[in-house]
Amino acid sequence: MVCKVQYYEKPVLNNPVLIEGLPGIGFVANITALQLIKELNAKLFAQIQSSYFQDLALTTGNGKTYFPTNQFYYAKGKDGKRDIIILYGNTQALTTIGQYELCGKILEISEDLGCKYILTVGGLRTKEKITNPDLYCTASDKETLQEALDLGAKIMKGHIFGVAGLLVGLCKLYEINGLCLLAETTGLYPDPVATRRVLKVINEMLNLKINLENLSEATEETREILKSFGIVSHSAVEKKGREADFRWFI
Amino acid sequence: MVCKVQYYEKPVLNNPVLIEGLPGIGFVANITALQLIKELNAKLFAQIQSSYFQDLALTTGNGKTYFPTNQFYYAKGKDGKRDIIILYGNTQALTTIGQYELCGKILEISEDLGCKYILTVGGLRTKEKITNPDLYCTASDKETLQEALDLGAKIMKGHIFGVAGLLVGLCKLYEINGLCLLAETTGLYPDPVATRRVLKVINEMLNLKINLENLSEATEETREILKSFGIVSHSAVEKKGREADFRWFI
Amino acid sequence: MVCKVQYYEKPVLNNPVLIEGLPGIGFVANITALQLIKELNAKLFAQIQSSYFQDLALTTGNGKTYFPTNQFYYAKGKDGKRDIIILYGNTQALTTIGQYELCGKILEISEDLGCKYILTVGGLRTKEKITNPDLYCTASDKETLQEALDLGAKIMKGHIFGVAGLLVGLCKLYEINGLCLLAETTGLYPDPVATRRVLKVINEMLNLKINLENLSEATEETREILKSFGIVSHSAVEKKGREADFRWFI
Amino acid sequence: MVCKVQYYEKPVLNNPVLIEGLPGIGFVANITALQLIKELNAKLFAQIQSSYFQDLALTTGNGKTYFPTNQFYYAKGKDGKRDIIILYGNTQALTTIGQYELCGKILEISEDLGCKYILTVGGLRTKEKITNPDLYCTASDKETLQEALDLGAKIMKGHIFGVAGLLVGLCKLYEINGLCLLAETTGLYPDPVATRRVLKVINEMLNLKINLENLSEATEETREILKSFGIVSHSAVEKKGREADFRWFI
Repeated sequence: MVCKVQYYEKPVLNNPVLIEGLPGIGFVANITALQLIKELNAKLFAQIQSSYFQDLALTTGNGKTYFPTNQFYYAKGKDGKRDIIILYGNTQALTTIGQYELCGKILEISEDLGCKYILTVGGLRTKEKITNPDLYCTASDKETLQEALDLGAKIMKGHIFGVAGLLVGLCKLYEINGLCLLAETTGLYPDPVATRRVLKVINEMLNLKINLENLSEATEETREILKSFGIVSHSAVEKKGREADFRWFI
Repeated sequence: MVCKVQYYEKPVLNNPVLIEGLPGIGFVANITALQLIKELNAKLFAQIQSSYFQDLALTTGNGKTYFPTNQFYYAKGKDGKRDIIILYGNTQALTTIGQYELCGKILEISEDLGCKYILTVGGLRTKEKITNPDLYCTASDKETLQEALDLGAKIMKGHIFGVAGLLVGLCKLYEINGLCLLAETTGLYPDPVATRRVLKVINEMLNLKINLENLSEATEETREILKSFGIVSHSAVEKKGREADFRWFI
Repeated sequence: MVCKVQYYEKPVLNNPVLIEGLPGIGFVANITALQLIKELNAKLFAQIQSSYFQDLALTTGNGKTYFPTNQFYYAKGKDGKRDIIILYGNTQALTTIGQYELCGKILEISEDLGCKYILTVGGLRTKEKITNPDLYCTASDKETLQEALDLGAKIMKGHIFGVAGLLVGLCKLYEINGLCLLAETTGLYPDPVATRRVLKVINEMLNLKINLENLSEATEETREILKSFGIVSHSAVEKKGREADFRWFI
Repeated sequence: MVCKVQYYEKPVLNNPVLIEGLPGIGFVANITALQLIKELNAKLFAQIQSSYFQDLALTTGNGKTYFPTNQFYYAKGKDGKRDIIILYGNTQALTTIGQYELCGKILEISEDLGCKYILTVGGLRTKEKITNPDLYCTASDKETLQEALDLGAKIMKGHIFGVAGLLVGLCKLYEINGLCLLAETTGLYPDPVATRRVLKVINEMLNLKINLENLSEATEETREILKSFGIVSHSAVEKKGREADFRWFI
């Protein structure tokens, strides 16, 4: 099967931007996606399951069962604003090949929905805790890069692993522009401060009014999922990394 | 080839339920499947061979040759009862990807046969030997979960590895409902006590009269296969785990 | 590409038997295939290259270049005898999946050529050097097994790794009968004694008159290939096993 | 996706020769390709991205973003000379299978463009630094080999790993002739001396006048890419080998 997509609905969208929100450093992308889904009242319309996800099921004691999955939500833009697709999930793929296959599928879906712009989100690990995190960016092309620089982002220097980097690298193959935004974070716990830094720029770029003060609910929800999986103890999620199978899974 | 299916017969079935019985903890699923095949006089109608099984043949000295395979049996329900498909085999796939591909193929076959309900079976490892093992469950949806809870199963909390978990996770993609039943077992040997616990609920759920007292034959057959492969010495099958190639193979 | 087949000719064959001769323990299959090709003056008609072979080229100083490949030869049977396909090569596939894909392709080619019988060959490792090696067998079905037993082979007990075992396991999916013949060998060097034991039975089964005394040329050729690759020093080829990439390559 | 090709233009070419220039020992092929692209003013017309490349993006601080990619350039031959295709890139594939899939795609593209001749380039590692490096060769056939021998190359003896070897091994499947040229190099840094040795023969073979004295720009560019990725410190690129993910990536 490799990647199997299940559509619940095929929305007709107006010049949509896709915002990627899969698990990663500081769970910045995850919290960003959750907050956008809540604030925009976004609607689930499709999900992907991949042969490169973990081969397991997880249950949490309240009867709710989790499986490795990536989900697509959409929100219609109000007052002539562009529509938004949100990619939320509890895992990335386990292997290099799996990541490419997953990104290929995400890009096919984006292309199919007329999406010409992809925004990926993540954390950039720092040693010290930072109260005013900087935002770093990289882009598929100069125009897109300039747009982020104009909003105060700095140029990223180094490696960007995972879907956040790969989508921006591959999007040109699909004639889609891509921008990656990374906020500084220690990455030790789901980080609402770094997330706020990202959402602030998203608000400006897309002319949105996402609530930046009330991120505690989305952060707590992310933390709860981690906890129930036995991955988080107290404030540290670093243990997660020890087990290769859980590289991306929350 | 990845997964190659060979059909000996294409049965026409009445609202069938598929019961999964591949090797796993305590060989509960294996013994369950063998007992169902014997008691229902089920008929072999198809088998799967996968590129993700072990690349070897095994011979046992009596001229009988074993290969890694998964087999499908069916039994027609009597007196208006629903038909039953039994998935029996001597292995699961060796890798994460192989497990997904295998489950995808099992679900395609299920869909093709009009199956709308999959029941997976397994053992839940305990440190101490238990005379009255509890039964745990998880399901693809609330209604299916409730059905198992009503019959005395408790809600499973934790990870379910392998086909037993994965089938329940993926079945929604095929519009199939899934239930996983796990009985407590030390997992040190093919366990008829844990198997009886599972079969008791299967009897109630499907209105069957599978003999619960005479599990020794199916247990012994499972033990004999393990022995002839040099995997079991005395009562312990744990050594099996040491060699990765034999992760699931019996 | 996975497996790419190149045909130089598509022979029309009369009830052909395929004899497998890929590298393995004691290089029994390799020498067997070389001797058959020489004695029957068999003609190369196709070759397979697989993504699961080693990603390298080998040159030997005399200008001759070797690549990982599997080749198919055929010889027309004289006086109404059945035709013979010989599978010769310098490698098996590197991974479990690669072995399955390779065997699937070999079986497809066999089916395509009307082949209903496959004979695989190999060595069965012994600790001591044996002057009169025994021959062991396993088969896809009882009739085929009995045929080998009647010619003095004993029933094999244990694991048969690689293409020799896998082809016999998978051939039933293609409605082909399969027999595996393994001769005792220390496996420390290309072994003409073990090969003679196998060829003797092949002569009887297929009513051939392959020269059993003059195996030195085929043995020497196999040894030379090993030597030029730096794999053999003196009489030991065991070092080969240390480098995983050379699992099967000669 | 495995290998995805993006065409910017489909050139009509006159009996073109493809020259491979992917990263490898001493970056001889890389510098060769860069010099050819500069001197021939070659034009980018296609690129490949593969699921077997690294799953990351790299940014270098000047705003330029690098992704793992292989690119195709072409230059029209002047005065009736044959056209040239140059394969340049910053990576080879990460796994054996990936290398085969990549080479299969390169050969498909070559076939599609009417290319009947492939020239691969590389370094042959020596312990000591050599001022007058020898050139070694291997070929798909005797005629092609002789052509290189006549120009002073010696016969290569040993293993040729990677795309340089594999393309020459596989090209026969596509009815393409292949030649591999390897110049002696310590491989410790991007080596213009070894590159000059290769380009000299390319000039003679293809009747070109590539500047052999001014290789510093292409060498420096290669070095800069390595540096900005933190792979090179001072003159050594050997550290690169330590991290498997960077096997081929520059």
